[in-house]
Amino acid sequence: MFFNIESTDPHSQARTGEITTAHGKIQTPIFMPVGTNGTVKAVHQRELEHDIKAQIILGNTYHLYLRAGVEMLEKAGGLHKFNGWDKPILTDSGGYQVYSLAHSRKITEQGATFKSFIDGSMHTFTPENVMDIQRIIGADIMMAFDECTPYPCEYQYAKNSMEMTHRWLVRCKNRFEETESKYGFEQFLFPIVQGSTYKDLRLQSAEFVASQDFKANAIGGLSVGEPAEEMYAMTEVVCSILPKDKPRYMMGVGTPANILECIALGIDMFDCVMPTRNARNGGLFTSEGTINIRNEKWKFDFSPLDENLGGYVNTQYSKAYLKHLLKHDEMLGCMIASVHNLQFYLWLVGEARKKIAEGTFVAWKNMMIPKLNRKL
Amino acid sequence: MFFNIESTDPHSQARTGEITTAHGKIQTPIFMPVGTNGTVKAVHQRELEHDIKAQIILGNTYHLYLRAGVEMLEKAGGLHKFNGWDKPILTDSGGYQVYSLAHSRKITEQGATFKSFIDGSMHTFTPENVMDIQRIIGADIMMAFDECTPYPCEYQYAKNSMEMTHRWLVRCKNRFEETESKYGFEQFLFPIVQGSTYKDLRLQSAEFVASQDFKANAIGGLSVGEPAEEMYAMTEVVCSILPKDKPRYMMGVGTPANILECIALGIDMFDCVMPTRNARNGGLFTSEGTINIRNEKWKFDFSPLDENLGGYVNTQYSKAYLKHLLKHDEMLGCMIASVHNLQFYLWLVGEARKKIAEGTFVAWKNMMIPKLNRKL
Repeated sequence: MFFNIESTDPHSQARTGEITTAHGKIQTPIFMPVGTNGTVKAVHQRELEHDIKAQIILGNTYHLYLRAGVEMLEKAGGLHKFNGWDKPILTDSGGYQVYSLAHSRKITEQGATFKSFIDGSMHTFTPENVMDIQRIIGADIMMAFDECTPYPCEYQYAKNSMEMTHRWLVRCKNRFEETESKYGFEQFLFPIVQGSTYKDLRLQSAEFVASQDFKANAIGGLSVGEPAEEMYAMTEVVCSILPKDKPRYMMGVGTPANILECIALGIDMFDCVMPTRNARNGGLFTSEGTINIRNEKWKFDFSPLDENLGGYVNTQYSKAYLKHLLKHDEMLGCMIASVHNLQFYLWLVGEARKKIAEGTFVAWKNMMIPKLNRKL
Repeated sequence: MFFNIESTDPHSQARTGEITTAHGKIQTPIFMPVGTNGTVKAVHQRELEHDIKAQIILGNTYHLYLRAGVEMLEKAGGLHKFNGWDKPILTDSGGYQVYSLAHSRKITEQGATFKSFIDGSMHTFTPENVMDIQRIIGADIMMAFDECTPYPCEYQYAKNSMEMTHRWLVRCKNRFEETESKYGFEQFLFPIVQGSTYKDLRLQSAEFVASQDFKANAIGGLSVGEPAEEMYAMTEVVCSILPKDKPRYMMGVGTPANILECIALGIDMFDCVMPTRNARNGGLFTSEGTINIRNEKWKFDFSPLDENLGGYVNTQYSKAYLKHLLKHDEMLGCMIASVHNLQFYLWLVGEARKKIAEGTFVAWKNMMIPKLNRKL
């Protein structure tokens, strides 16, 4: 059984469950820290496991392809062996990175040609070679190659793009089925719903994707600049179609409030660079609101980072000390803030899981969201 | 009892001992990781304690004065409270940093005036205010304010400078005795022998310093560019004068081989930025020799960093992975290499300690030094 639903919330679409992979089980709803280039920035693997309690991390196919390289990953025996993280890994397909390279890539029916940000060399991703690369990386969960549309996006562009993404999905599926895992454990492929912010396209895409009968389904092309209300509206539309008995993964989302709202809409999996990226700039998420540690008000605040959260970095280090470290570009500042923020995200989805099981999720979410959005 | 000698080597001046401070005991010979600005760069405090097994760390008065500031340290209740390291701390006096600012400082009988590297503002260190600052930092061990001479140094300059350092020592001692710890625990003051590479000056300085009857004695002004043979010759001269029953601290030294040679000459305490600075540039110290991990030969070497050393970073991460991280400026690379190198330095002095107790130190040292100097 790939996915086992354990409880459902009576007042929303939220549910708790468990996903089983060759590298272990994942309790949902879950947040996946982003380990771009084979490392969650500034975080040791044992901190991911013991402090943050990550159950699955994400790797970026685009970055791993360019900067570790398939030769390296193949010789290492895959990403798990390369970086020493032996719990589940999901790799994205590179579609999002290709999207973000707006001025140095070209997308055709065949695939996407882009310029390396490292040496300017040209590379092509196709649905087929992205499957091959992800076979070599050896993640437990591979993602289909898609085109992520920008926001705003003209209707006709969004429609054509979505249809191409669907054709690419069939090509991905074929290649996936023709090939096998290189390292002796089962890999899963997740398809991605697109359709920009158009309800009819999202419905159409969700129906097509659902018809392909994968083990789980993902929603892409959101959190690219649209208002949160649009994101929630699209998520609701898509979740009404995607089968309830399979995990739903919302790609690249989001703030703590976004995550709670999307859990209520039936999402089970999330990833986002926000906790680690904001951490390096002094942006902390806490159970009482957000903190910009660069603000002078924290200069002499010797209280722990987040008293409710507990754990090593929150009890060992004060706000004043963290501010000092980040102000003076000391790496330990990024290290502390990154562990803290990821710990907070995993705490948040863990709390959501408890509340869903208790049947109190919606009331708790409605109490939490104003706190999470508060600037301290 | 501040210092208790536990064993002496029959074939050299090496000895093992234990220093007692308010924040705990220190087993000698010991290496002290350098925590410049209130943090050992890229290393969590619990890694210092549990992985590296540091027993004492060093803070730089110059950096702490400029970039945390005395107001911050006083409000925090001292450096231990500020950074959460509750084992022994030693602070240098700023003399070495003033020396290294050759073009932006002026030294007179009164003290040293220097320009801040941060904002260009002018500051003055005197023997008196350096004692006051170290009282506020609250290290277990404070260092006297000295002038560190460059290498090479003209005889007359070295002589005048040494005599001034002696007068400054008396001023430090007076101020130290007139003031008291601000945080309720005993602090110790260590004096510093100078005299450049002139045997007669070193003898004279060691005699003067010994006559002042401090709890321990330090040797400064070495490892500033002179050949290792000169460093050892000066160390031998000074150790022949400094009382055997008190700890001897060799400031700013050095390579693993330097440390073993100086232990043989009777040194008990060391500090150096080399393990952490080299780590960030890919220079690793191992029990089989040094590694420049940037070298292409390590690209596909999936073996652990140092199989003899053990511990988390050495068993969890491979050379190929570390090379990948450092090549692509991933912070985790600096983090792994820093823990590794410091762990190696602490392992080395720990091994030396065992061999001294067993009476086999000299044979072991002579076997180790060619290995330590080998480039792998």
